[in-house]
Amino acid sequence: MATYARIQDVAQHTGEEVTIRGWLYNKTDKGKLQFLLVRDGTGSMQCVVFKRDVTPEAFEAATTVTQESSIYVTGTVREEKRAPGGYELSVTDFSVLQIAQDFPISPKEHGVDFLMNHRHLWLRSSRQWAIMRVRATIIRAIRSWLDDNGFLLVDTPILTPAACEGTSTLFETDYFGESAYLTQSGQLYNEANIMAFGKVYCFGPTFRAEKSKTRRHLTEFWMVEPEMAFADLDECMRVEEELVAHIMRTVLSERAEELEMLERDTTLLEKIVAPFPRISYDEALEIARAAGESIEWGEDFGAPHETAIAKAFDKPVFVHHYPTQCKAFYMEEDPERPETSLSVDLLAPEGFGEIIGGGQRTASLELLERKLVEHKLPREAFEWYLDLRRYGSVPHSGFGLGIERTVSWVCGLSHIRQTIPFPRTLGRIYP
Amino acid sequence: MATYARIQDVAQHTGEEVTIRGWLYNKTDKGKLQFLLVRDGTGSMQCVVFKRDVTPEAFEAATTVTQESSIYVTGTVREEKRAPGGYELSVTDFSVLQIAQDFPISPKEHGVDFLMNHRHLWLRSSRQWAIMRVRATIIRAIRSWLDDNGFLLVDTPILTPAACEGTSTLFETDYFGESAYLTQSGQLYNEANIMAFGKVYCFGPTFRAEKSKTRRHLTEFWMVEPEMAFADLDECMRVEEELVAHIMRTVLSERAEELEMLERDTTLLEKIVAPFPRISYDEALEIARAAGESIEWGEDFGAPHETAIAKAFDKPVFVHHYPTQCKAFYMEEDPERPETSLSVDLLAPEGFGEIIGGGQRTASLELLERKLVEHKLPREAFEWYLDLRRYGSVPHSGFGLGIERTVSWVCGLSHIRQTIPFPRTLGRIYP
Repeated sequence: MATYARIQDVAQHTGEEVTIRGWLYNKTDKGKLQFLLVRDGTGSMQCVVFKRDVTPEAFEAATTVTQESSIYVTGTVREEKRAPGGYELSVTDFSVLQIAQDFPISPKEHGVDFLMNHRHLWLRSSRQWAIMRVRATIIRAIRSWLDDNGFLLVDTPILTPAACEGTSTLFETDYFGESAYLTQSGQLYNEANIMAFGKVYCFGPTFRAEKSKTRRHLTEFWMVEPEMAFADLDECMRVEEELVAHIMRTVLSERAEELEMLERDTTLLEKIVAPFPRISYDEALEIARAAGESIEWGEDFGAPHETAIAKAFDKPVFVHHYPTQCKAFYMEEDPERPETSLSVDLLAPEGFGEIIGGGQRTASLELLERKLVEHKLPREAFEWYLDLRRYGSVPHSGFGLGIERTVSWVCGLSHIRQTIPFPRTLGRIYP
Repeated sequence: MATYARIQDVAQHTGEEVTIRGWLYNKTDKGKLQFLLVRDGTGSMQCVVFKRDVTPEAFEAATTVTQESSIYVTGTVREEKRAPGGYELSVTDFSVLQIAQDFPISPKEHGVDFLMNHRHLWLRSSRQWAIMRVRATIIRAIRSWLDDNGFLLVDTPILTPAACEGTSTLFETDYFGESAYLTQSGQLYNEANIMAFGKVYCFGPTFRAEKSKTRRHLTEFWMVEPEMAFADLDECMRVEEELVAHIMRTVLSERAEELEMLERDTTLLEKIVAPFPRISYDEALEIARAAGESIEWGEDFGAPHETAIAKAFDKPVFVHHYPTQCKAFYMEEDPERPETSLSVDLLAPEGFGEIIGGGQRTASLELLERKLVEHKLPREAFEWYLDLRRYGSVPHSGFGLGIERTVSWVCGLSHIRQTIPFPRTLGRIYP
């Protein structure tokens, strides 16, 4: 029996006989020649079955095999410039493990609802396959960069007793007689963790029970949240731009083939190198107004404003010093202009909008206590958080980068639901 | 001003003047000499303040500074064999950022409840610090090994419409008018993902609303779940032992200092190299009975049985071919002995018990349909899962490794609650 090989490794087996284990993706029948497009999860490859080269049973099997049937294909790996990927298999043996009858997703167009109902099968399609491979690379790039730059992974809890930013968009569950909520952010816990570990990050699922039906919202999404002791707003921006530039470099070098499958214009991605432009909220407001958007000082930017602002740049742009009233209770005020905060959002170009939110956190116990009152938050639930300002408070900063929005941007997708294997949206929790 | 340095990097600054930013961990007052033990999250270091070397203000500050106050310490790095870590700082300047009053956790003994209520501060203690550093290294080792061995990270959903293994231990939440449950395992989704990507893993939080109050249970815990198309039970065990051996190698080489702080006997860990012994359930049953445990064929092993079985080996031991009735509906039956399943658990030595559960999954549509009926599971919720057997079913295997139990074992801990930053147990969801 021939050696098993993965399609992504076939170049190493040129001239050898190997067995590919996979599924039939597509097929062209030319009589005595059957052109099988086979995928095995690592890639796809053209396998040519010539009647005279195989047994009658194997040829019959190759002629009648259906889309998504599971198969073993044995043959010799040959360089073939005309084949997709540059290699093809001259088949010497073929067998079917299981015949698939009427695979629901055919090469014809399907509606989005139909595809989402068949998400467990749709993931086998080449575009979805490519997106998930880019996603995995983005996540790995983020973790590597943080690990290599002195950040310790410290997992923060999912089940929490209190809300980080208000309670209206929380999923609630009964926790042995008490109420618990699914986390919206690990940040508050990160702030405890930096006092023990210096620089940390958490990386996990977060939840918003938002009734938004937009192209940019999921109810369950993944977020990486780095947090740093002894770091100010400037340092926060520096880390953000280094991280984002590293993501882009990694994807461009490791996932060029997938980006091509997605027809992504990579010349736009190649421009994403540090440093990124930095403008204040006030400057951003001027840009939005100049683009015809009407907005008052003190209002938060919505998607149309963000698009207008980001359009002025071909790199992601930092918008800092948002009005204090726009931001969460824990955001540090600018001491010289307390109506503004030491906050910063990073807006991606091409209309993709906010991918990072962050900034410097309130270090003073007195200011934080006042903020809790102003935001009508239950002090008791935040006692432990106040402790962090009682026992060795330090200036500190951090941010949250949304994985799915980043995947959307990198892959150039029109809707966030394709960025995660099993999306959860207002109307969907199946499969 | 001197360069900022991290304590873990001080060796690179021998003879130079640097500034350490951190917290006071401990202090010894010798009159004109103040010995400060300073920690900065990356390690701790002795800093010696000699009255004649600093300003009167700095000396006064060093004399009166309290435990966990946040501080800046500037001085010259000197090799000093007697100091912990081998280096000390001859202080030239000292200042306090914030004085901490009455830090609740003093070097004296505290009760567990008190410490758990102050978990956000307890994490600063040296043992907790060491455990979390080992934990991060274990997680990184797992991800690296999987990434480097052809597994693609594919995130599975946390909010699910149906239960994987029964509904009695599920956390439920309202999902816009429907019921949703927090995942207990990503496995079923992994089985869809392998048909698209070949070999995959998910790595995230999982939940069990169990009313167990044991040393080995958390309601929220992290699990890595690799799954492989075209892999049988043997291949599953091979991957498990390679992965566990890699974890051990990595921790021993990268976290020797932390294991020493934990007073872990590393000679026991050095024995954990592949291959691991493999015994059947029937053989394991004999071992348990020989050790005086009374148990009937067909019953699952409990903690005392696992301890008795694991004691017979100084490496983790695979127990395979559990009775079909002990295992979940998706486990493949042994065709030659259908009352046993192609399942395998990995039991860690020293009484740490099960750290991995896994095996081969049912490939046949007919068998799976029958199993759903036998286990009284709602077929409608599993339609998508049945699709995986309709469209290109293949033999496949996978497993789940519990992170917290692995951390417990590697660190030699008596209770699982110290293995995760903010543990969630039957009685605890704060802080």
